[in-house]
Order: sequence, then C-alpha cells, then structure tokens
Amino acid sequence: MSPATDADPSRAQQAAPDPVVQLGFLSGQLGHALRRAQATMLVDLQPKLAAEGFRPIQFVVLEVLGHNPGLRQARVSAALGMKHTNLVPLLDELEQRGLMQRRKVMADRRASALFLTEAGSQATERLRRIVAEHEARFAARLGPHGRHELLGLLQRLTDPGFDPGR
Amino acid sequence: MSPATDADPSRAQQAAPDPVVQLGFLSGQLGHALRRAQATMLVDLQPKLAAEGFRPIQFVVLEVLGHNPGLRQARVSAALGMKHTNLVPLLDELEQRGLMQRRKVMADRRASALFLTEAGSQATERLRRIVAEHEARFAARLGPHGRHELLGLLQRLTDPGFDPGR
Repeated sequence: MSPATDADPSRAQQAAPDPVVQLGFLSGQLGHALRRAQATMLVDLQPKLAAEGFRPIQFVVLEVLGHNPGLRQARVSAALGMKHTNLVPLLDELEQRGLMQRRKVMADRRASALFLTEAGSQATERLRRIVAEHEARFAARLGPHGRHELLGLLQRLTDPGFDPGR
Repeated sequence: MSPATDADPSRAQQAAPDPVVQLGFLSGQLGHALRRAQATMLVDLQPKLAAEGFRPIQFVVLEVLGHNPGLRQARVSAALGMKHTNLVPLLDELEQRGLMQRRKVMADRRASALFLTEAGSQATERLRRIVAEHEARFAARLGPHGRHELLGLLQRLTDPGFDPGR
C-alpha cells in the first residue's frame, strides 16, 4: 500500500475489504456489517453535503423539523435515536445560522418549540435533492426487491416489537 | 415526554420511533434505516464494553490486530473502512495502555508493524465474549435466515463488485 493511499482517508474508506487481512470473529457479524455499510454511504454523502455547508445529521434534523413545526427538542432526539447531548449543539448551530428558531412554550418553561425559518426550508429542499440522488444510487445496488427486504430486516433489528403483518 | 426521558440519552436512543413525529422524506431511506439500526446496536454494546474500559471500535481494532500480527497501520484503516485520522489516536491509546506495540519496519522508515501484547490478547478474548453475547441477542430478532439475508444485502450495498455466486 502506497503512502499516498495511506494519507487519503476517503480512498481508504471506499476501498473494498482487503482480501488478505483476516477479520476473524468480526466477519459475519451484524454490528460490523452495519458499520461498514453506513460508513460506505456516509463517505459518499458527506462531501456532497459539505459542498453546501452541511453535515448529514444536520440534514436529518432539518428534514424532521420541516415536517413537524413546533416539535419539542426531546421528541427530536427520541424520534431520530440521537443522544440529547449531541442534538443540543447541533440545534444551537442551526439557530445561529438562521435556519431554525427556538420559541418558548407557555405551558412549560423548560421546553422550546422548534421551527424552521424560510431560509431553513429552502436549504432543506436543496439538500433533499442531493440526498435523494445519493440514496437512489445505493438503492440501485440492491434492486427494488432487495431494498424492500433490507428496510424490513433493519426495522426488525431496530424495533423487535414492530410487526407490519399485524 | 417527561424531563427524565429528556435527560437520559440511552432511553431516548432505545425508544421506538415516536409514532406522531413525521419523518417525511427520511422514512424508507436506506441511509436513515442503517443509522437507526447501528445506533440501536451501539447503545446496547457501549455500556457493556465501557464497563471493561473499552469502546466498540477499540475492540474491532484489537480483534483485527490479534488475527494479523505485524499488520501495517494503513492496512488496518483500509480493512475496517476507517479514516486514517481516526485510527491514529486510537492506536496511540492502545499502545499507551500496553495492549498493542508499534515496531519499526526495516524496509520502510515511515511504516510501523502492529502487534498485540499479551495483555492485549487477554483483553480481546474477554471483550469477544461480551460482543458475541450482544450479537447473538440481535441475531435472534432476525432468525438464522433473516440474519443471512441481512448480511448479504449489506455486503451488496458496501461492495457492489462482490458476488458470492461467482
């Protein structure tokens, strides 16, 4: 492996698994396979969103706020499976950039209701087109049936109580 | 949602998706579903490994070094799909804790060969039992067929050139 590859994290991350490196116990592990798949998609998406000044998780939060005007902070973290301690600085940044506003809730002094600004809505729309194109390219690797299967299996892994057949 | 839930990131992260929060464009997205599934598994594993003084990614690196004595740093990042800039401080910490050693390679002044120490091997063995139990509990949510299907689909997503049928 050349020093040039060594110094280029995006090439290292996109490379196919090194056939000579033994993964031992890791190969065939769900946790490991999920981490690899997510890293592969992120490495594709990150530079595209960075060119617009955003990180993937910022898009996710903007998208949810756009669909749920007035949502409380705690419900954003619950709905997205995010740690509250990671969400707060992310919201701070979006607010400072004029993309989102916190408004006080009369009934509960500790709670804030969250709203996208007009600039926030426009940014979300722009980012959504980029993400949709990225998503479609990965979905094409699986075909419509494979994509549907994968979503169902991930749902069962994430939420064992979920049963779409009931 | 109570303030107690709000302040407890592990509860927020393990909760089923909030049925009232609209995910809009995100629902049915591969990227989003992968992030949720990985977060669900990590939230289960993290406290179990933290009780032993480790993070999940540290276990992954220890496991690979144990199976590949003398591996070069650049090949670790390539094999694991990790950014090189994230790997270096991780290796520094493992070395400082006496779990891993870097040894100079005669043929290439810039390269180091990596080796687990005896303490590193023992720690890896201990962690492997914890990870195997965690993995088995999630695999049980899918059943043997579902687990096999999921691994195949994740492989196709990560490495579109991979074809196990050839």
